[in-house]
Amino acid sequence: MEDKHMLMIPGPTPVPEKVLISLGKHPIGHRSGDFSKIIAEINQNLKWLHQTKNEVLSLNVSGTGAMEAGMINFLSPGDRVLVGVNGKFSDRWAQICEVFGMETERITADWGKPLDTEEFRTKLEADSNKEIKAVVITHSETSSGVLSDLETISKYVKAHGEALIIVDAVTSLGAYNLPVDDWGLDVVASGSQKGYMIPPGMGFLSVSDKAWKAYETSKFPRFYMDLGKYKKANAKDSTPFTPPVNLMFALQTALQMMQREGLENIFARHLRLTKATRAAAKAMGLELLAPDDAASTAATAIRTDNAEAIRSILRQKYDIAIAGGQDHLKGKIIRIGHLGFISDRDVMMTIACLEAALTELGHDFAPKSGVTAASKVLV
Amino acid sequence: MEDKHMLMIPGPTPVPEKVLISLGKHPIGHRSGDFSKIIAEINQNLKWLHQTKNEVLSLNVSGTGAMEAGMINFLSPGDRVLVGVNGKFSDRWAQICEVFGMETERITADWGKPLDTEEFRTKLEADSNKEIKAVVITHSETSSGVLSDLETISKYVKAHGEALIIVDAVTSLGAYNLPVDDWGLDVVASGSQKGYMIPPGMGFLSVSDKAWKAYETSKFPRFYMDLGKYKKANAKDSTPFTPPVNLMFALQTALQMMQREGLENIFARHLRLTKATRAAAKAMGLELLAPDDAASTAATAIRTDNAEAIRSILRQKYDIAIAGGQDHLKGKIIRIGHLGFISDRDVMMTIACLEAALTELGHDFAPKSGVTAASKVLV
Repeated sequence: MEDKHMLMIPGPTPVPEKVLISLGKHPIGHRSGDFSKIIAEINQNLKWLHQTKNEVLSLNVSGTGAMEAGMINFLSPGDRVLVGVNGKFSDRWAQICEVFGMETERITADWGKPLDTEEFRTKLEADSNKEIKAVVITHSETSSGVLSDLETISKYVKAHGEALIIVDAVTSLGAYNLPVDDWGLDVVASGSQKGYMIPPGMGFLSVSDKAWKAYETSKFPRFYMDLGKYKKANAKDSTPFTPPVNLMFALQTALQMMQREGLENIFARHLRLTKATRAAAKAMGLELLAPDDAASTAATAIRTDNAEAIRSILRQKYDIAIAGGQDHLKGKIIRIGHLGFISDRDVMMTIACLEAALTELGHDFAPKSGVTAASKVLV
Repeated sequence: MEDKHMLMIPGPTPVPEKVLISLGKHPIGHRSGDFSKIIAEINQNLKWLHQTKNEVLSLNVSGTGAMEAGMINFLSPGDRVLVGVNGKFSDRWAQICEVFGMETERITADWGKPLDTEEFRTKLEADSNKEIKAVVITHSETSSGVLSDLETISKYVKAHGEALIIVDAVTSLGAYNLPVDDWGLDVVASGSQKGYMIPPGMGFLSVSDKAWKAYETSKFPRFYMDLGKYKKANAKDSTPFTPPVNLMFALQTALQMMQREGLENIFARHLRLTKATRAAAKAMGLELLAPDDAASTAATAIRTDNAEAIRSILRQKYDIAIAGGQDHLKGKIIRIGHLGFISDRDVMMTIACLEAALTELGHDFAPKSGVTAASKVLV
């Protein structure tokens, strides 16, 4: 049905009406006093969202752009970096390190498995010459719906002392507890079209004092992505380059909504939706890609040989977009997004429609088992 | 008055209601078939706007980001480049070349003066070893309202044979005739919040075959700004990274509006508004920064010692934002934007209010002379 489209993918995520109205307002000059006030409010609320005293910078780039900026501002050619790779996005960060001439070491896990924290401990402890300059971790790997134990890995990085911990939090920030200061995270990158509940177009970076110290000796050339320029502008409630004014109107409104809901409630909601989705999948006899204790709260990946047929029915008949698998998992998994502006109702209707699609495709399971299992979690 | 703000600055420019409504629509998945169709339409219309058969790429960056990408994808460290510098933005392009380790030679003109085409001819003709790899020209220098003779400079670059011509068309594309293929322009960068009539957040690059050949041997590391990835994705009506979906909805609508108006009418309108503004300024006894034969059709810069007082009255009393001077021209000029979604009426009301502000500040000139002069042009 026209305009009845519902996004249950891990980004872009649904955008609240209030936020869409802010987005569609007439722009104002980005060098005006009125816009400076908006920047000041946003910067304050970004710190709240990141649970940090660190500077949080807003860039007019995608999440990939934010991750690139988060690496090339604090490292130099030839630097040894450990990159945890267990999916498509984490592999991309390793590619970026390689393209920029870093000595890149992948610490891999199968897609669907969390990174092995012990491997990081061993590598870091063995590095007595302190050659490792950064550890790059994807907190929630969107391609497989896996959450890795960032807190533990960060402890090992702190014990190492020299290395920075650089985090892809694109689908964990605003979906899972991520206390940047408590966990001592140096660089944390995120993107607007995820937990932030606004459309794509902005990337964010929180940067620790230790990272700013590394910035001083970092040797990659950069200008548009030079984070020092953003820091300097932030201090004056300004931006170094023309910012995406309307997306920032939307961001202002979305952050206000998040504050009203409260961080604890946001995290509890995402956890509840995740558990409901997983319980429903299991009740319908489906196999989950990620284990329970490493389940991303952004998206649930479910194994099925009927992935594309299921997606097609949900899209054509029920106007629900869910994601499929990427690369070698294409056609072998479906991914249900439950990130951002998603309510209990949204998960219930998705499970109900998924159940109908599976029935249509001849899957054998007890009727209503998915809906019943989900509803038990969503009490 | 609340929400009565009118943008008469050279960006962001006013956004048509239709475009704001498109902007505020709910996002859809950027990997969906529906979105591919939008990309295909946009790409087609971008070629129309650029008057080119070249690939035109859309990036999620500001105009500065587009210019940086337009240089670092086709050049290498140590390359000799000539950069025409006659204002704040053109100087920024020289800075970028320096930051990236190019042998950067500035060919300067005073702010308010066009670039001297003969200087480029001389330098290019003297370069018998073909060491000059690029000539970087700002077509319309926004900081001073000056249009340089890009067509002539491009001829000299073509005669040289080796160098690429890389153009900042941020405030000329969609405001002044810029036939990319006829003039043989290799790289042309522009930004969304100008002639495109959409809010800030996107940068565009048209790239010639000659530039793509240079891309193959270019040695700067890049990933998010790697234009080869954008070209490859364009061929499949896709994007390499998550695109700013809602800005692209807006872009689709704006390009449709531009097509209905027609390129010739758009250029004629901008020329008419420029002439009206300049005639009004002269009639009020004000001095124009740029000469008539090098007047940007994006913005008119007017000398006045009362710049900030004039801007304040226009902003406070009449809800009109006009721009001031930058760097050494701060406080010494006002800049009236007449770029993008600006009609004859908008210029008339700006001149009327400017006249009132000047009167309030004790300027001595014949009453209604500005409005009368403007109206004579806008017949």
